[in-house]
Amino acid sequence: MTVTLGDRPISIHQVLSVARGEGVEIHPEALQRCTATWEALMDIANRGHPKVYGLNTGVGINKDQEVTKDSYCRYNMNMLQVHCVGLPPYGNLEEARAVMVIKLNHLLMGYTGITPRFITLLKDMINLGVHPAIPLRGSVGEADIACLSHLGLVMTGQGLVIQDGRPVPSGPELERMGLEAVQPGPKDGLGLVTSNALGEALGALILDRIGRIVDTADLVYAMTLEAFHGNPSPLDPRAMDLYPSPGAQRSAQTVRSLLAGSYIWDDPKSLQDPLSLRCSAMVHGTVRDLIRRCIKVLTAHINAPDDNPLAFPDGTVVPSALFEPLPWVVHFEGLKVALGHLAQTVARRTLRLGSDRFTGLPRFLNNDPCNCHAFGVIQKTLSYLLAEVRHLCNPCSMDVESLSEDQEDRGCNTPMVMDQLGQIAQRLEALLAIEAIHAAQGMDLRGARYGVGSSAALERLRREVAFLDVDRDLSCDILSAQALIAGGGLLKASRDALGEVVAYRDL
Amino acid sequence: MTVTLGDRPISIHQVLSVARGEGVEIHPEALQRCTATWEALMDIANRGHPKVYGLNTGVGINKDQEVTKDSYCRYNMNMLQVHCVGLPPYGNLEEARAVMVIKLNHLLMGYTGITPRFITLLKDMINLGVHPAIPLRGSVGEADIACLSHLGLVMTGQGLVIQDGRPVPSGPELERMGLEAVQPGPKDGLGLVTSNALGEALGALILDRIGRIVDTADLVYAMTLEAFHGNPSPLDPRAMDLYPSPGAQRSAQTVRSLLAGSYIWDDPKSLQDPLSLRCSAMVHGTVRDLIRRCIKVLTAHINAPDDNPLAFPDGTVVPSALFEPLPWVVHFEGLKVALGHLAQTVARRTLRLGSDRFTGLPRFLNNDPCNCHAFGVIQKTLSYLLAEVRHLCNPCSMDVESLSEDQEDRGCNTPMVMDQLGQIAQRLEALLAIEAIHAAQGMDLRGARYGVGSSAALERLRREVAFLDVDRDLSCDILSAQALIAGGGLLKASRDALGEVVAYRDL
Amino acid sequence: MTVTLGDRPISIHQVLSVARGEGVEIHPEALQRCTATWEALMDIANRGHPKVYGLNTGVGINKDQEVTKDSYCRYNMNMLQVHCVGLPPYGNLEEARAVMVIKLNHLLMGYTGITPRFITLLKDMINLGVHPAIPLRGSVGEADIACLSHLGLVMTGQGLVIQDGRPVPSGPELERMGLEAVQPGPKDGLGLVTSNALGEALGALILDRIGRIVDTADLVYAMTLEAFHGNPSPLDPRAMDLYPSPGAQRSAQTVRSLLAGSYIWDDPKSLQDPLSLRCSAMVHGTVRDLIRRCIKVLTAHINAPDDNPLAFPDGTVVPSALFEPLPWVVHFEGLKVALGHLAQTVARRTLRLGSDRFTGLPRFLNNDPCNCHAFGVIQKTLSYLLAEVRHLCNPCSMDVESLSEDQEDRGCNTPMVMDQLGQIAQRLEALLAIEAIHAAQGMDLRGARYGVGSSAALERLRREVAFLDVDRDLSCDILSAQALIAGGGLLKASRDALGEVVAYRDL
Amino acid sequence: MTVTLGDRPISIHQVLSVARGEGVEIHPEALQRCTATWEALMDIANRGHPKVYGLNTGVGINKDQEVTKDSYCRYNMNMLQVHCVGLPPYGNLEEARAVMVIKLNHLLMGYTGITPRFITLLKDMINLGVHPAIPLRGSVGEADIACLSHLGLVMTGQGLVIQDGRPVPSGPELERMGLEAVQPGPKDGLGLVTSNALGEALGALILDRIGRIVDTADLVYAMTLEAFHGNPSPLDPRAMDLYPSPGAQRSAQTVRSLLAGSYIWDDPKSLQDPLSLRCSAMVHGTVRDLIRRCIKVLTAHINAPDDNPLAFPDGTVVPSALFEPLPWVVHFEGLKVALGHLAQTVARRTLRLGSDRFTGLPRFLNNDPCNCHAFGVIQKTLSYLLAEVRHLCNPCSMDVESLSEDQEDRGCNTPMVMDQLGQIAQRLEALLAIEAIHAAQGMDLRGARYGVGSSAALERLRREVAFLDVDRDLSCDILSAQALIAGGGLLKASRDALGEVVAYRDL
Repeated sequence: MTVTLGDRPISIHQVLSVARGEGVEIHPEALQRCTATWEALMDIANRGHPKVYGLNTGVGINKDQEVTKDSYCRYNMNMLQVHCVGLPPYGNLEEARAVMVIKLNHLLMGYTGITPRFITLLKDMINLGVHPAIPLRGSVGEADIACLSHLGLVMTGQGLVIQDGRPVPSGPELERMGLEAVQPGPKDGLGLVTSNALGEALGALILDRIGRIVDTADLVYAMTLEAFHGNPSPLDPRAMDLYPSPGAQRSAQTVRSLLAGSYIWDDPKSLQDPLSLRCSAMVHGTVRDLIRRCIKVLTAHINAPDDNPLAFPDGTVVPSALFEPLPWVVHFEGLKVALGHLAQTVARRTLRLGSDRFTGLPRFLNNDPCNCHAFGVIQKTLSYLLAEVRHLCNPCSMDVESLSEDQEDRGCNTPMVMDQLGQIAQRLEALLAIEAIHAAQGMDLRGARYGVGSSAALERLRREVAFLDVDRDLSCDILSAQALIAGGGLLKASRDALGEVVAYRDL
Repeated sequence: MTVTLGDRPISIHQVLSVARGEGVEIHPEALQRCTATWEALMDIANRGHPKVYGLNTGVGINKDQEVTKDSYCRYNMNMLQVHCVGLPPYGNLEEARAVMVIKLNHLLMGYTGITPRFITLLKDMINLGVHPAIPLRGSVGEADIACLSHLGLVMTGQGLVIQDGRPVPSGPELERMGLEAVQPGPKDGLGLVTSNALGEALGALILDRIGRIVDTADLVYAMTLEAFHGNPSPLDPRAMDLYPSPGAQRSAQTVRSLLAGSYIWDDPKSLQDPLSLRCSAMVHGTVRDLIRRCIKVLTAHINAPDDNPLAFPDGTVVPSALFEPLPWVVHFEGLKVALGHLAQTVARRTLRLGSDRFTGLPRFLNNDPCNCHAFGVIQKTLSYLLAEVRHLCNPCSMDVESLSEDQEDRGCNTPMVMDQLGQIAQRLEALLAIEAIHAAQGMDLRGARYGVGSSAALERLRREVAFLDVDRDLSCDILSAQALIAGGGLLKASRDALGEVVAYRDL
Repeated sequence: MTVTLGDRPISIHQVLSVARGEGVEIHPEALQRCTATWEALMDIANRGHPKVYGLNTGVGINKDQEVTKDSYCRYNMNMLQVHCVGLPPYGNLEEARAVMVIKLNHLLMGYTGITPRFITLLKDMINLGVHPAIPLRGSVGEADIACLSHLGLVMTGQGLVIQDGRPVPSGPELERMGLEAVQPGPKDGLGLVTSNALGEALGALILDRIGRIVDTADLVYAMTLEAFHGNPSPLDPRAMDLYPSPGAQRSAQTVRSLLAGSYIWDDPKSLQDPLSLRCSAMVHGTVRDLIRRCIKVLTAHINAPDDNPLAFPDGTVVPSALFEPLPWVVHFEGLKVALGHLAQTVARRTLRLGSDRFTGLPRFLNNDPCNCHAFGVIQKTLSYLLAEVRHLCNPCSMDVESLSEDQEDRGCNTPMVMDQLGQIAQRLEALLAIEAIHAAQGMDLRGARYGVGSSAALERLRREVAFLDVDRDLSCDILSAQALIAGGGLLKASRDALGEVVAYRDL
Repeated sequence: MTVTLGDRPISIHQVLSVARGEGVEIHPEALQRCTATWEALMDIANRGHPKVYGLNTGVGINKDQEVTKDSYCRYNMNMLQVHCVGLPPYGNLEEARAVMVIKLNHLLMGYTGITPRFITLLKDMINLGVHPAIPLRGSVGEADIACLSHLGLVMTGQGLVIQDGRPVPSGPELERMGLEAVQPGPKDGLGLVTSNALGEALGALILDRIGRIVDTADLVYAMTLEAFHGNPSPLDPRAMDLYPSPGAQRSAQTVRSLLAGSYIWDDPKSLQDPLSLRCSAMVHGTVRDLIRRCIKVLTAHINAPDDNPLAFPDGTVVPSALFEPLPWVVHFEGLKVALGHLAQTVARRTLRLGSDRFTGLPRFLNNDPCNCHAFGVIQKTLSYLLAEVRHLCNPCSMDVESLSEDQEDRGCNTPMVMDQLGQIAQRLEALLAIEAIHAAQGMDLRGARYGVGSSAALERLRREVAFLDVDRDLSCDILSAQALIAGGGLLKASRDALGEVVAYRDL
């Protein structure tokens, strides 16, 4: 299976496929387009005029310096070197591959004017599994020049690649794979580094992870409703069909499916449950709506040029600012806020499960109140995780200094936004683990007839985390449940029971 | 001119029209729908069963209490009273009217089951200009029950209305207008307060204001480009057409129109300007994109029921959570972040205008460096305003306590989000005023041929703020320019010159 | 009563006295010291060398420009003018007077080298009540040059003074008072504006207000303990004497005094109350500890020179950075966080008062559960106010752009920090009002024997806010109680009963 | 070398010594005190009355449950188990030892009433190097009960200890060391977990690290002043002696010592440097002042009981809230803000070093502007790190849910505050690394006579990071310099040259 690039827009789904090991092909017309643009730029480079930014001039505030013909290679080599200022951690293989396929896709649009051999080398690296060590920190996200350079450097035979999880020199590895390094020519330095491919790659991957989280949140919420003996009426399609959020409609429908066959439909205990339980579909749905929006804008930008200047096959060169990522990054900042609401809702549902006032079950779901303490102190962990998420919700994208003698006075901190989303995702998985442990305990205590999806999940969870009949170290339980959730196992169990696939539907 | 409600969705534009004085009519079928639902509920109320939340039961955690037939009126009257917990400031007339028309629109969907006379009274109040004193603070934004109650109370003949800018008792005012107060029956209390109409009204108004701000930002940016002798190539349609942000394309196109005829197209000074100047269309455009998104989701929610429970003409009652506003509020939180970027871009463009290194003009645009200080210290004000905006960008929507014995453990702080947007808008108007003062000084110092829109704006600004040839108190200049911008005067001057209307295009 | 300045450090208490109307005298030796320094500088000015920053050179990035002898006056006049970039609101009389006395105190240290007639004029303005209109917004707080200029301008006969709450031209007002404006000479411009007097004045005033708030918090907490039937053992001196916070010991001791004679000592209901009640003395005490720290560092800085350059009577001039306010401002940022904890503690105590599970009183302190709703919805207001405080706790002091061509690349946003503290204080007064209303209702419902201080406060509150027996508009109650608290009336009632004074002890 | 505990307060310095390997002894009188209290409690336990919280009752909201004599051991064992809800990462050996010595010190005050054999076992574990695996996440910091339990569990022979960096079961390890596990009796569970020892231990360690950072900041600033050809007059003792910050005076004095013999004293280039350079001593000094304050309050709390209830040798038991950590935690929140200013100052000094306008050196310290790019892009990394610090400055201590059915509705998130300080420290080390690289390049380019301390540091740095004459991958340089700084090597080089010790003076 390979993904063909260059003839049509790629989807986030395709990016993820390549990130996870699929190969790529280049559509021949795309390569011709690239070659034509490159040849046009080479004409200018050979003539020495007109002045084209980064081709025969310096970059940034050094744009006033001339780059002469005899120094093209050295100049561009130096540029790659000195742009290597990213800091560890390095991206893992999935992240490195996602960067490479997105960068390749940008290049194939044909507006960069890069030496075509870089393009084919990049394709070969993806297909042969040569994975540059790309540091994840350091880019201010107005093009990820401080990090993309590490990829560029590898293609020149220098820099580091990841082998068995460790950075090693790239030269021998290229050689081992029969690949030939390329020496950079005019504008190649700029063409390699000017790209938001790192931020975009991290964005694609995090959307996938958050998609799995919100799917899991629907599932765990279904379990909670049953443990709680909640009233399912807020999921009623007569109401939900009037609510203008496609995501909320999806979540409500999903939870209804998961709960098919449950006792909960027979005998609603209470007129109105706490808001955290009643509004869950809306909160989950908001996350879904934002994921959909993020997918849409991110896909658009992954399939648009992010070059500066923009070069055309006829030799036209347009200084531009197409690398500005704000139109899509701002939605990821908004997603952080939505996830903050999700985290709080998960936490509060869980706290409600511990409350005998609401559930009619023993306080803290305690099977043996005379001897056990059960799920009391675990609420501290819940609060701790929620506080971490709350802190991560604060924005960071505008905190960029005016750099390079004020020539570069904007940024979006794109990789930092994605890093924060990743940290939030990790906390959400732990929060859902704690909710799932509570819900399972409540379900077992109540001993009713449960939904087809939720009962499958209960059974699956019980293979990792036993019913709490005597007090034990709960850290272990949390970690087991978290691993199950992060790995998709809990979701898979319920989807199998429903005869559905696990993949996030919008990707 | 009147707006007819009840037959089709209303637009934000219509909400604004009514807010600014237009009257309303009710479509007869809508009223019939409402009456049918009400009659169905009255049947239940008279029978006393089944239990319907807020009809024959208490609300919130008191849902377990029964409300008996003989206490319906008193119970509902009390409910209105005790929900009046909002704090000043009170909304102005525009805000009060926007709340009323949105609430009326919600009621006319026919899912509330409210006494129909409340509906007609609300219409009459809009048309006769009886404006309740609605406090803007106190609602946690999970329905604005703590504030909508103040509107409800007025309709019962109690509470306060705004007269000549001051709160006065409503009774005499209703009488003076020939309006009769209505005594609340079963579910009327709940029906009146359960609504996000306050947050939605504030949202509609702030979108209009921010729309004007981003239009003005385009204009002031055009002036800055000319004062700066900037390179207009980032606005080039050959590049912008490839950039997947409709808002950015709009901003670029607008600025090109404003600059028609300018010297700037003849002779670009520099290959690459600072990023704040090159990326302006993208930053402005991101705000536009978010406004458009906010309009879309807000309009959808304004035209959907936000009741709980939801009542149907056949007597079906569905407990629901349609009042959850997160799906639209989260976009307004994102808008705050986008405006943070806009504010920073405005500030940094202005700082660049003071830099002789970039402009070739005297440092701080100083006409007489031997004797004057010119635009140096004014940068402090710029930084101050930007810091205020940065602080306001932090999210607030999830900071809601678990209330009402944990029965009401969610919220979105919707009115607070809107208040913060309003504060940001006020700072942006001041920031744009300072940029405009700089740009005008630069244009005058440079003395070139300017664009049709930008030269009209320069001329208009000069009627308020003179060229700075000798140092003077600049506070006054800032305040004058800010008033001109906030009032739309600067924008109007340029639109007149272009033969275009001032209204924000997306509303 | 007058305060003599110039012979010893002034206290915050003295600053407040002058702010509230007391007059000032200047110690003659201090004036001599100032005159000597001034004469030394005039020698340099007349000679034209050596180069002294701001004396015979420009300021900021314009330090490389020379100021010649014949332009001294015009140059300094211009400097005052163009530093006037502050934005409304203007400080009230109290704020203006606090600024003036602090600025005067700085000048009298004798390191400024200012024309002595400015010093005597400033004294006369304080004593005759000529109050400049000083805008509160615009200073980045690295010296409040953008705002102090407005004071300086008034002394030259220009600018605005406040009369009957409105800004009017200063010239006629000076004349009316028989005061003569002064024309600025060399370094006078810089000497007048280089000062943190605005931030320091606002800091002194806010500490006084917060002191009153924490005293009131102790009182309201005492009422809450009685309404709650709380266990007073956490206040036990055997425990508190071991707790290393002087503030907490003070709060515990205060509450014990207020509760002298209360039924609460006889019969503790419960072994352990909720933490918000048990930890109150510690939380209040932390605020006290921070107030004390703030007083100490602020007093030290008010009594140190904040000039640049620093001039000595022997003509020595030392370029310096004594205007850096971080060492004290950082404690005010910390105070914001402490107040965030206080606000949350107040809110949570209040929520606990509504809980029958804890109090044994009716839910929401409802006197008539069949007919009333009582204190349920009012919790929304509580949450709203707390969320505002939470937002204001975020820091702002480091959000300063690099200004003046990077010459001025630091700041503390001091006046903004103080503004945020003022906003927090206003919310805290409202939160305490709501707690007091709850506590009073609980006390009346319980009907026990109350403490000498708390019963006096109950009685005083009842003159403004009646017992809630039937539901009514609670907004009015909140506003009444808030006014009583902000005005110090509630505190006074309890202090009178104890025979103590109201003033905050540490000031 | 051993530290004797129990006879006098321990210092942070002693805590650090034990953390790094020193042993402890227990003063015999302290153990007698503990035994007496324990015996008094055992009397109550045997009698079964009076009710003592956590002795013969449940804890938290379960305080209403009785614990009977025959279930003491099982009850307390369960309590330890179920409090184990912390999440990885686990503390390293240093962190584990710091927790143990602080906990031991608290116990030896004699107010806990714990079984004395726990005390001697804890001492033995410290001395024999048995290190429990204590998870660092999960405590809300109102006593670190969710984490201290992991230590308690180990002492009962269960739970995990760290061996060769990995968690292994504790039982065999205790046995191997000849230590006997203890079975918990009445109140032992509560006595073991009720303690802020984790937060306090992390606080002590981070103060040490930040102390080293601020010392390094002084050193790197000295290098920057020389590279910049800065004006040292702001360090002048005539000015600094008037500035009321002991920390600032210390920093100024330190920098003067480091610069002894430097060319910088001979020939100041400029009247006034950018503020970031002029105010450095004040900013560094503010951090010093806050460290000193943190040491003072933390030391006081480490040496006070943090128990609840508090038990006395005569059998008196006082329910208390001495575990409230806010009085000291709030200063650590303030420290975060101060470090935010430090980070910004470091970043801006570094940016200024790249500016030829200020330094007179080539732009971006470029040795060969025709061929190299030098230190341009590295500014991105600087901005990235600063943005991370800015984000971490936001407070987190008040973000605690109301837990345990509202019985536990307070917290300080102490370990989270410390974790954020650790993250800030790591960024500061990287920022200082980048500044040091710049300063060294500037010093080499300028080639003047440098100070005794700064030249030693230059020489030391050059052994890790070579002069940049041709562009190279700068990531490696940053990492090398960061390791040198974090390890104290740079500081040591300068201290050796001055004949001073490296340890932070205030500890």
